[in-house]
Amino acid sequence: MKLLFIVMDGLGDRPIPELGGQTPLEYAKTPNMDKLASLGMNGLLHVIAPGVTPGSDTAHLALFGVDPYEYYTGRGPFEAAGIGLVVKEGDIAFRTNFATINTEGLIEDRRAGRIKEGTDQLAKLFEGMTIDGIEILLEAGTEHRAALILRGPGLSDQISENDPHVEGKEPLDFKPLDDTPEAEKTARVLTTFVMKARTMLGNAELNKKREEEGLFPANYLLIRGAGKVPKLPNFEEEYCLETACVAGGGLYKGVGRMLGMHIIEDPRMSGGTTTDLVAKFDIAQDALKNYDFVFTHVKGTDNYSHDGKFKEKVEFIERVDKEVSRFLPENYEGDLVVMITGDHSSPCSFKDHSADPVPVLIYSPDCRRDKVEKFGERYAVEGCLGHIIGKYLMGIALNEMRLVHKFGA
Amino acid sequence: MKLLFIVMDGLGDRPIPELGGQTPLEYAKTPNMDKLASLGMNGLLHVIAPGVTPGSDTAHLALFGVDPYEYYTGRGPFEAAGIGLVVKEGDIAFRTNFATINTEGLIEDRRAGRIKEGTDQLAKLFEGMTIDGIEILLEAGTEHRAALILRGPGLSDQISENDPHVEGKEPLDFKPLDDTPEAEKTARVLTTFVMKARTMLGNAELNKKREEEGLFPANYLLIRGAGKVPKLPNFEEEYCLETACVAGGGLYKGVGRMLGMHIIEDPRMSGGTTTDLVAKFDIAQDALKNYDFVFTHVKGTDNYSHDGKFKEKVEFIERVDKEVSRFLPENYEGDLVVMITGDHSSPCSFKDHSADPVPVLIYSPDCRRDKVEKFGERYAVEGCLGHIIGKYLMGIALNEMRLVHKFGA
Repeated sequence: MKLLFIVMDGLGDRPIPELGGQTPLEYAKTPNMDKLASLGMNGLLHVIAPGVTPGSDTAHLALFGVDPYEYYTGRGPFEAAGIGLVVKEGDIAFRTNFATINTEGLIEDRRAGRIKEGTDQLAKLFEGMTIDGIEILLEAGTEHRAALILRGPGLSDQISENDPHVEGKEPLDFKPLDDTPEAEKTARVLTTFVMKARTMLGNAELNKKREEEGLFPANYLLIRGAGKVPKLPNFEEEYCLETACVAGGGLYKGVGRMLGMHIIEDPRMSGGTTTDLVAKFDIAQDALKNYDFVFTHVKGTDNYSHDGKFKEKVEFIERVDKEVSRFLPENYEGDLVVMITGDHSSPCSFKDHSADPVPVLIYSPDCRRDKVEKFGERYAVEGCLGHIIGKYLMGIALNEMRLVHKFGA
Repeated sequence: MKLLFIVMDGLGDRPIPELGGQTPLEYAKTPNMDKLASLGMNGLLHVIAPGVTPGSDTAHLALFGVDPYEYYTGRGPFEAAGIGLVVKEGDIAFRTNFATINTEGLIEDRRAGRIKEGTDQLAKLFEGMTIDGIEILLEAGTEHRAALILRGPGLSDQISENDPHVEGKEPLDFKPLDDTPEAEKTARVLTTFVMKARTMLGNAELNKKREEEGLFPANYLLIRGAGKVPKLPNFEEEYCLETACVAGGGLYKGVGRMLGMHIIEDPRMSGGTTTDLVAKFDIAQDALKNYDFVFTHVKGTDNYSHDGKFKEKVEFIERVDKEVSRFLPENYEGDLVVMITGDHSSPCSFKDHSADPVPVLIYSPDCRRDKVEKFGERYAVEGCLGHIIGKYLMGIALNEMRLVHKFGA
């Protein structure tokens, strides 16, 4: 028995007057997901806890059965892992932007003009760098994004960021957030690093060329999201599950990698609304041949929610639904559990995450089918799963796979 | 977006044969709450946890999102705060009765004949008193009620009471409830204080006059409900919410005050069945102009429950419903979330609190309206909120106010 777990980011929503008081998911024509809902079990998922608005990182930990209250230390480690850095327990990891600072010391562009190419060369400048015995690992991601790791003894993640979050201002000072010598040392190492980086980046050929071309040089590093890399449970070791992660966004790959999933990379998965959904689900279907558990993440639903574009959210859901067709029992050969949900609600009226629960459906060949016939927020109210706390979801799914982990004897 | 939170004390009940097998709430004609129920979200609230019967104090902590298992230390601190004492973290607070002791040392009346006037003068006798470096703060409340605080180093709340709870007996000795020197010291200070108080009160002019008039003198103090004042979250600091407390009962004002609410005092709110409900809801409506969050507590439902008076409970609920009319979306100008529930069930057949869940309704302009059409225990079963644990309620309400407190990024 294999498990396909489809997460539509920011799926849950609220009634929208222009959709006749329906949510985008309720309004969308989703015959395939409705079929699975009618054959399966339905419920409402409180990904962290009722009334708690999840971040994307904490939400995904919970979806994979990892209690974020116990394990979450900040976004940095997941972003770093997502970009491809091999993070180690105890590393201090940060989200980083290549940015532009002017001669007056003011941040002119927080994203160095959304620089497209060359940041990997810039990151290479720092290869082998150490400051006071601390290894500096900088890895470029897409566009202006990068991840930074400080590795070595006596460090802390209780450290403020230097990103002023607006342009035209000076970068902020790194400050220790507690009284420990570890936080003090981390602040000092970061400050020294950013100062050296400014000089090194300023002198880089690439940036001189960008300036000549009238482009923003990537001559500064804005660093935020400090987190000490936690020791997370490992899917393969804990559940004996060979697991694949099919996602475009760095964060989701990062969470997957830290949980011991095999990350499938493919440039057709953009991690946004432009992603090639057909390719993504081809990859997922293919992965089901080799893996027990395939996590498939689509981000577009959340992107449209943040822009308040409910019509586009409806269409995107309908496009995902088309790809779900191939996993219906009549179309799929083999025993398959299909679980579909979101990592949180993102009502188009909020343009942000909310604490509203997300509908969840779990189909398995002999599950306790309930009377719900459609996949949607308010249909799910009548489902047999009731209200579920996120961290319990994975156990429920594993049970459908007949992977019994008995507590007690 | 503002929040009106109406708590009807002891609202939940059980089927009553004389009401055709309906509960008082189900039986009552409540067109306005039914309207909000039909436009809003409904569910059943386990204020502490399923199967746990809440006290009034623990219930209100939970309703405000404060886990009573973590924060509750006894009723004393809340009573003291309700009476108006400014409690400080670490104080040991007690509920206190002015009582009557006779010359043989037996308690003749536990409430000094429900003394109406003069206890504030009596309490003043102790102004500035210290015993072995411990400050003694005694504040009179309504009738025979008072609150006592011991303030100073080396104290404990692990201390028994001196109230025998029946008349004609000697007061009990204060005993330490654990082996610590703190509990020992607290017992000693209390014993000394009560001994001195007996003399001072016995000599008070007021009591001599009462004796001449054949009234019970308030010549003794019965002390119970020891609790060390905890550090509670503060609504204004935690949520940036300016909050008003509209309540008559001391306990509810005390909880509100300790959570940083602004307490609105008005003698028309009696904290009982005689309260002026029109005035109370006028005050609440007015408070919504100046505050983000208005907590409005009505006590009468619980008082009638304790007396088993289900008809009066029905009528009282109907009177509250009339006042709710002004907060219906068609009658209220402005964006308003309305949340209505009870702090616990008090079935008229029990004449006491019970662990039965309480119905809860939450209305907000764009909430995920469910199919429930009436406000009542058994209608709520079909609501989209399902079964909620009390400590999560506030997060759910804040989410309706669009106050997003994201956990993670």
